[in-house]
Amino acid sequence: MSPISSTSQVEPFDYVIFGATGDLTMRKLIPAIYHRFREGQIPDNFRFIGTARSQLTHEEYRERASKALSDFVNRTYYDAKVAAKFIEHIFYASLNGAEESGSWQNLLDLFTPKDAEKVRVFYLATSPNLFGQICANLSKYKLVTDNTRVVLEKPIGYDLQTANEINESVGKYFKEDAIFRIDHYLGKETVQDLLGLRFANPFMENVWSAENIDYIQITAAETVGVEGRGPYYDKSGAMRDMIQNHLLQVMCMVAMEKPASLNANDLRNEKLKILNALVPITGQKVAENTVRAQYQRGFLEETTARSYLEDLGENQTSQTETYVTVKAEIDTPRWKGVPFYIRTGKRLHKKVSEIVIQFKESSTTLFPSKPGPDRLIIRLQPNEGLTLSIMAKDPTSDEVALRRANLDVSFTQEFNIRYPDAYERLMLDAVRGNPILFIRRDEVEAAWKWVEPILDGWSKNITPLAVYSAGSWGPEEAKIMLAKNGHIWHEDMR
Amino acid sequence: MSPISSTSQVEPFDYVIFGATGDLTMRKLIPAIYHRFREGQIPDNFRFIGTARSQLTHEEYRERASKALSDFVNRTYYDAKVAAKFIEHIFYASLNGAEESGSWQNLLDLFTPKDAEKVRVFYLATSPNLFGQICANLSKYKLVTDNTRVVLEKPIGYDLQTANEINESVGKYFKEDAIFRIDHYLGKETVQDLLGLRFANPFMENVWSAENIDYIQITAAETVGVEGRGPYYDKSGAMRDMIQNHLLQVMCMVAMEKPASLNANDLRNEKLKILNALVPITGQKVAENTVRAQYQRGFLEETTARSYLEDLGENQTSQTETYVTVKAEIDTPRWKGVPFYIRTGKRLHKKVSEIVIQFKESSTTLFPSKPGPDRLIIRLQPNEGLTLSIMAKDPTSDEVALRRANLDVSFTQEFNIRYPDAYERLMLDAVRGNPILFIRRDEVEAAWKWVEPILDGWSKNITPLAVYSAGSWGPEEAKIMLAKNGHIWHEDMR
Repeated sequence: MSPISSTSQVEPFDYVIFGATGDLTMRKLIPAIYHRFREGQIPDNFRFIGTARSQLTHEEYRERASKALSDFVNRTYYDAKVAAKFIEHIFYASLNGAEESGSWQNLLDLFTPKDAEKVRVFYLATSPNLFGQICANLSKYKLVTDNTRVVLEKPIGYDLQTANEINESVGKYFKEDAIFRIDHYLGKETVQDLLGLRFANPFMENVWSAENIDYIQITAAETVGVEGRGPYYDKSGAMRDMIQNHLLQVMCMVAMEKPASLNANDLRNEKLKILNALVPITGQKVAENTVRAQYQRGFLEETTARSYLEDLGENQTSQTETYVTVKAEIDTPRWKGVPFYIRTGKRLHKKVSEIVIQFKESSTTLFPSKPGPDRLIIRLQPNEGLTLSIMAKDPTSDEVALRRANLDVSFTQEFNIRYPDAYERLMLDAVRGNPILFIRRDEVEAAWKWVEPILDGWSKNITPLAVYSAGSWGPEEAKIMLAKNGHIWHEDMR
Repeated sequence: MSPISSTSQVEPFDYVIFGATGDLTMRKLIPAIYHRFREGQIPDNFRFIGTARSQLTHEEYRERASKALSDFVNRTYYDAKVAAKFIEHIFYASLNGAEESGSWQNLLDLFTPKDAEKVRVFYLATSPNLFGQICANLSKYKLVTDNTRVVLEKPIGYDLQTANEINESVGKYFKEDAIFRIDHYLGKETVQDLLGLRFANPFMENVWSAENIDYIQITAAETVGVEGRGPYYDKSGAMRDMIQNHLLQVMCMVAMEKPASLNANDLRNEKLKILNALVPITGQKVAENTVRAQYQRGFLEETTARSYLEDLGENQTSQTETYVTVKAEIDTPRWKGVPFYIRTGKRLHKKVSEIVIQFKESSTTLFPSKPGPDRLIIRLQPNEGLTLSIMAKDPTSDEVALRRANLDVSFTQEFNIRYPDAYERLMLDAVRGNPILFIRRDEVEAAWKWVEPILDGWSKNITPLAVYSAGSWGPEEAKIMLAKNGHIWHEDMR
């Protein structure tokens, strides 16, 4: 595997993380910058400045960062010398972001006027209700230079109104083109590859419409439960946590028209058109087009698994969904009549994110039996790659009997490289000032507009909360929803 | 690997081979029947009767057959018990097929009236100038029952006139539907799979025309030279030996319209339409659309290789081509403007038979560089399978730079079976009386009609005989022919 990327160095920068002692920083952000540093893409005079409330010295924080590297960087790419050099660029400031004075001085002390020559990124990995306050303080303390961007972690709001409030409060201090709303699904190489797959291959472009496609499935299945995130997750649920942002964005990448260019706004304009063309799911349609469910006890990865309520603990009751299927329809000429089944869930049978393009069946009567439909499976992760499932002659048949054959490519094998994590690309794109893989404000709002009536319907119990066993592929209701249209989930296709 | 095929048993039969001591019988015909016998597809009361001029007892011929099995059946499928049982079904009659009396009694002695209840197949693997005489004798000695077919090995003639003579002479004694002109390329599973690929997959059917396809290459490359076949080959040459029959048939399977059914005549009608729609290559067009060449000394498979003239021996001179490329054009709406580059040669770099469908390039300017064209490579042999070569996002790029990715399926792996040899299917199809994979008389004649003006042009030296080194991919002239159209041979695509 080549350790050297073909990419070029970014400009010198200071990356300031709010929420720097959290899980995301340790698991994702520090390893992401390490990988890019190791591959030579980061200039020597960069800094990674962690901030959080904890009282830590630079040295104490560096120890945590070192541990994060050794815990979360794959052995193959862990280089102790490089790690030691990298750690020297890490600093820490104890800081309460919402506080209007006092602790901010700890951060200010780290900056000299000369640092304004560098790109500056503030990465807000805190609770979103702090975003406005932090931005106000950044402005107040004159930390915002011409070359400053702010990265906002999800969730951007709890509904349209709170999303607007966050966007307004951040927008007071940052122009839209300096606001980088992160959606790590867009940073996945395989999601970006949808651009290549769809628009660099006339072979694919040709069949990418209702004329040839029967239906599409977008799945993000997890095996984990709520783990330590119970209190947060129980207020959010699968729709807010996964569908409103990640899976609608993936759907946009699958469905959008060809953008005029790969300029960020051209691309985002096309995604926005899809979000705006989503057929609203309101009133009784909530019962027909959505399934929500919560996991019960079950058996998963060779052990018994607790129910969601048990995971929450303390004799909780909850109507929060840990599983969602939405049948989305896009009212454009290209997609008229093609259901997009969007699905996510916790404690499902397998960890897999994939898109299944199910083509229309041939009506031919040429063969001894009716051919099954062609399928393109786009594996977002793991085992990133593509499978094109077609019909071939069964070589054991003395007629032209048919049998399914799968053309496959696994990208890591094909390209013989380490597949970069989404955060590597996204964190450096923020340095570059390239927002192509970040969400524009109008996209966030359009997504909420479509999601809200569904959440509203659920709160009125128009679709009752279904159940599924941990370790299963979700509730029966989701199979039935597809079966009514003669459709079937990918894992049930045999 | 499953030893049991899903196919059903054929009727009891007597297979009579003329030319039964020859290479084809030993290498192909005896192992083919063995494999089908081993897989349970042949009933117990069949006979395999060899005839040739050699004076041999049944026992002596059985020894040769036993040796053929142990030499030419892969160890994995060689079962000594099954082989011993199989050998008991083998008989021999010393016979001069052209002789009008005398030796034929040896064959007649093997038949009783009760044998007429079985299917009878006469397989003529002799020189074609004996075909008429043998058929006359079969008729004279009343060996032709209602359930008798005759299988004709290639070559069916040296040109249109001699082909007609053979067809006439055989046609006197056999109806067209009892005449099975063998073309072992049609027996290849991967050639039959073209029906499945093209007509069971709307995904493929959609792009299978001039609208999407830039050009097509059909290659049958051999590493062997003329070996012991020098005297025969020198009169024939690559055009008669490979193009007129095998590769034009493969082209028909690639190019034909969807047949009304998989009835033999529906299929052959569609192939015939393609042969009749071939744009004639006459006069000066022979120079533009064909390359003929002969191999010179070279280096192949880690050793030096002799020239064709040296292989012929005895200070020979020869203008016979051991390599041909023809640029064929099919004048139908589907294929208008799409060149079919058909190529064969001896002593080439690699043994490979394949079809390359080169799709038109995208004209998009969306990406940092222009995407390369999509390609479908159909591997007829070896490593039977498909590769779909498309453009994907280069995961090392921070833009959406493109990189080629290959989706692949190897049929033997996918289906986990032994791939049957072409002769297995074809020999039993003759028993079944199913001529779908055999050539109808009008097809043979249409192919000769198209080939003759090219041979005629060559005899007038309109295209001079080019040269190529043994172990190369053929003459420079063939590269230049494609380069003039901006096209490139598959092995030169990087």
